[in-house]
Amino acid sequence: MDFTEKKIDGEVIYDGKVLKLIKDKVLCPGDVVSYREIILHHGGAAILAITEDKKIFLVKQFRYAYNELLYEIPAGKLEKDEDPYDAAMRELEEETGNRADNLEYLGVIYPSCGYTSEKIHLYLATKFVKTHTNFDKDENIETYLFSLDEVKKMILNGEIKDAKTICAINYYMLKYEN
Amino acid sequence: MDFTEKKIDGEVIYDGKVLKLIKDKVLCPGDVVSYREIILHHGGAAILAITEDKKIFLVKQFRYAYNELLYEIPAGKLEKDEDPYDAAMRELEEETGNRADNLEYLGVIYPSCGYTSEKIHLYLATKFVKTHTNFDKDENIETYLFSLDEVKKMILNGEIKDAKTICAINYYMLKYEN
Repeated sequence: MDFTEKKIDGEVIYDGKVLKLIKDKVLCPGDVVSYREIILHHGGAAILAITEDKKIFLVKQFRYAYNELLYEIPAGKLEKDEDPYDAAMRELEEETGNRADNLEYLGVIYPSCGYTSEKIHLYLATKFVKTHTNFDKDENIETYLFSLDEVKKMILNGEIKDAKTICAINYYMLKYEN
Repeated sequence: MDFTEKKIDGEVIYDGKVLKLIKDKVLCPGDVVSYREIILHHGGAAILAITEDKKIFLVKQFRYAYNELLYEIPAGKLEKDEDPYDAAMRELEEETGNRADNLEYLGVIYPSCGYTSEKIHLYLATKFVKTHTNFDKDENIETYLFSLDEVKKMILNGEIKDAKTICAINYYMLKYEN
């Protein structure tokens, strides 16, 4: 069966700095007409960076959408058409002050497939050259190092809730521990 | 240091069926003024449902935001102020035709913390009573059963990209296999 939904009509509701919101009228299977409210987003890159003594870089920052401080692996948005590898290299250095010497692709995740087109590309970084951090002026970040066991406990006890971080740990466990 | 960002002003840009878009003017630490484009969303519930012979329910559906068919664990949006437990019970039954006899809370994930307030609550279902499916009229879903090993392979080879599905597997591995 063909489950494809075909665009009949569409409008751009908002075209902002971080995201664009569109509303499309679509034809679903069985000639059902419906609407899809979709966020268009350039995507992101996130980096599971593990030091030689097996510590993981986590950054802690205030997230306005949740009104909470969250632990996350270093990450950032892609510029339009930017190679995720380049974004991963840049964001890791900006947020931790370390340039990756070895950056391995883990996979891509779709954070919330019902309404956003965002794709987050996950990388594993394992060798570093110390440089310096470089934050955006509205970006306030603290950097931490935790062991893999500590990170696993923080997921289970709810201290880590960020999906890309949990997914990156899952890729690592499946590739290197399973 | 207080990293909190305080709302100075705000506007509702769009108030739709699935999501609401707001743009807030905020005061960041160091008296930096910035803007936050945020999706307000009621949140969701997703269910890792494992049969007695250790098979996992995955649903396959077309996702317009990606123009792709995706494998996901059963899931759905919360109604305003709905208990995620009730939503998990409902969505599992609607999408798989099985009512859970045992529904255990795994944790909450934040799918994309930079711009959406959505929280997805993850549950583990392990005992079922056979009932019947009940799809929305614009929802076209196929249900599959895969072993845990198959699901792990599908994550690694990119057949599963959905973040909530990968996170649920991670919770399961951390709780029951680690």
